[in-house]
Amino acid sequence: MIDLPRKTLFDLPDGVIYLDGNSLGPLPRGAASRAAQVITDEWGRSLIRAWNSAGWMDLPARVGDRIAALIGAQPGSVATGDTLSVKVFQALDAALKMRPDRRVILSDAGNFPSDLYMAQGLARSLGQEHELRTPAPQDVADAITEDVAAVMLTHVDYRTGRLHDMADITARAHAAGAVMIWDLAHSAGAVPLEIGAVAPEFAVGCTYKFLNGGPGSPAFIHVRPDIVEDIAPVLAGWMGHAAPFAMEPGYRPAPATERMRVGTPPVVQLSLLDAALDVWDGVSMEVVRAAALRLSDLFIAEVEARCPDLALASPRDGAARGSQVSFRFPGGYAAIQALIDRGVIGDFRQPDIMRFGITPLYLDADDIRAAAAAIGEVIGSGAWHDPKYQIRARVT
Amino acid sequence: MIDLPRKTLFDLPDGVIYLDGNSLGPLPRGAASRAAQVITDEWGRSLIRAWNSAGWMDLPARVGDRIAALIGAQPGSVATGDTLSVKVFQALDAALKMRPDRRVILSDAGNFPSDLYMAQGLARSLGQEHELRTPAPQDVADAITEDVAAVMLTHVDYRTGRLHDMADITARAHAAGAVMIWDLAHSAGAVPLEIGAVAPEFAVGCTYKFLNGGPGSPAFIHVRPDIVEDIAPVLAGWMGHAAPFAMEPGYRPAPATERMRVGTPPVVQLSLLDAALDVWDGVSMEVVRAAALRLSDLFIAEVEARCPDLALASPRDGAARGSQVSFRFPGGYAAIQALIDRGVIGDFRQPDIMRFGITPLYLDADDIRAAAAAIGEVIGSGAWHDPKYQIRARVT
Repeated sequence: MIDLPRKTLFDLPDGVIYLDGNSLGPLPRGAASRAAQVITDEWGRSLIRAWNSAGWMDLPARVGDRIAALIGAQPGSVATGDTLSVKVFQALDAALKMRPDRRVILSDAGNFPSDLYMAQGLARSLGQEHELRTPAPQDVADAITEDVAAVMLTHVDYRTGRLHDMADITARAHAAGAVMIWDLAHSAGAVPLEIGAVAPEFAVGCTYKFLNGGPGSPAFIHVRPDIVEDIAPVLAGWMGHAAPFAMEPGYRPAPATERMRVGTPPVVQLSLLDAALDVWDGVSMEVVRAAALRLSDLFIAEVEARCPDLALASPRDGAARGSQVSFRFPGGYAAIQALIDRGVIGDFRQPDIMRFGITPLYLDADDIRAAAAAIGEVIGSGAWHDPKYQIRARVT
Repeated sequence: MIDLPRKTLFDLPDGVIYLDGNSLGPLPRGAASRAAQVITDEWGRSLIRAWNSAGWMDLPARVGDRIAALIGAQPGSVATGDTLSVKVFQALDAALKMRPDRRVILSDAGNFPSDLYMAQGLARSLGQEHELRTPAPQDVADAITEDVAAVMLTHVDYRTGRLHDMADITARAHAAGAVMIWDLAHSAGAVPLEIGAVAPEFAVGCTYKFLNGGPGSPAFIHVRPDIVEDIAPVLAGWMGHAAPFAMEPGYRPAPATERMRVGTPPVVQLSLLDAALDVWDGVSMEVVRAAALRLSDLFIAEVEARCPDLALASPRDGAARGSQVSFRFPGGYAAIQALIDRGVIGDFRQPDIMRFGITPLYLDADDIRAAAAAIGEVIGSGAWHDPKYQIRARVT
């Protein structure tokens, strides 16, 4: 087993403490050279032949198996490609078709908006026969009634870091006859997961956060092996066909989870992700989790000692929290800009959330203390009042 | 105006004549360094800040405008991202919603299978109320009846290279009250297009063929500006929201074609594509087309003079042909393998099609003559009978 942090495996800029790996993970050292190899050697030299000679065709499944290992799912149960929003759509359409007599999609008000939007778009396309219910996160468990077709939740709340009890909610969903879909955007690479044992029908996630796959890295979808063969995918693309190069006029789904593939895979981004996953070799997710909780508790204590105006937005109990710590502060947007100016990178979420990702692969206690000191300085000195920090960028 | 070919703009391997740019375009010289810059500098150094500082957020629209220029569409009318199959799905769902009283999707038997599969998947998801009709390509124009909701065709047939008369079919579709969707997979970067003047409601395409964006390069979708504001996208992802970072609970579409964006854009692949599009600077598509026809006619003549057993599968009339030449030959698969072994790279399509892309950006008459000579040698000598050429690879 390997000790943390593993800073040498990342290409981190000098003078930066990076607390935004929950939004975009940093560059793993091997990734750039792998991309160069794929572009210059595989594409450049082998051209079309690389689909076979460089294994491009099987790359999505190989990367899927590596992700399966990180989320506690069995090999062959994870397909990669597309964006997380598209994978949410695939899972939700399949779930609704599994429960044709039910009309409710249950999510929560803390879910990432794109998941809700995709549900709205699907319901609209299907004729508005489905109702999307979004109670408060803490009320979801009791809202799983027998009219619910699908429970669709993000495991870790993107604003507060609040963690749903995945096993309990999944069991309740199944007891009520509902299909369970978990979005692992803020869980994969952050907390130990036992998707195989918990046994939701679907789990989806992105790979550019805690999995460090780079900007726009492809998404993944897990389908429970006992149900996958019954799914007729809505996005019936040729790469999910049983024989893509037979060029048959009719769609026949590929075996198992391969049917959730859609179009031509993004080979360069998938290769970057493949290289990025190397940083997990020999790493125990339990060790990561324990370190994240130690660092998070330290961060909360250090910030609260300095900044009485910041209100903890995340659960104080580490067991109820993912791998991020959020504070509410009315000047949060400007304070985050002032911190970025000082090399401490977190991010801001509407309406007043200062959000900090805690990633023990490349952060240690000294980083956490230095970050907290910078927060104390920015808030205590009033530096965030500087007009230059009030200008909103397009991406916040 | 710049003369063709522009071989120095491509990083082509020695000893190869590449006649498969209609499947995967070769590596443009500037692309590798652009990818390295995005990965090492933008991602590595700027991290999350690069969404603003490196312009990642606007990259899909900037690339879309460059594609718009190549297909004769107006700026702002092309969105990029996802795969072509997903873009077909978006267009078709929107088209069906525009004609709620009609139940027929008209395509043709020569369409690329994934387009047909996506139509089948959408129809299944919507409750099998739609019928997919696929007459022979030459019979489509007369099959546009007043029960047709959407005509969905690929402009250039992927096997034969046969070109649909885009203006005529679009006019007939509109006269019958149908919505027109053109798939430009084998047209963009191959033939002059006037999408704005022809005015189909939708045009979609991929960018890894004649646009040389690399393996898995993102797709594009054009929506006619006068109808786009009425579209409620089925794939209602956050990047197509009017205010993605407001994190509103309800979906509100972004203005114009931006609403066809779905999830987080594949920044690295989009940047590769952006760099690849530099090879078109100063190039007239009419000049490309004229050169492609000269080279294609030469290729047909040279091959037919040597190989009486090969039957031309493409239209003999250049005006009816895209930028590829196909021959039928019972031993086509093995013959293509033997040619690849000799550095002449084409590809094979079921059941007996030997397919050769004619790409004047990096091919000249000497290449065409040498390729024809190699075909003559492989067929004439019987070299393709060698058992090593009979072994089928996964991707053919």
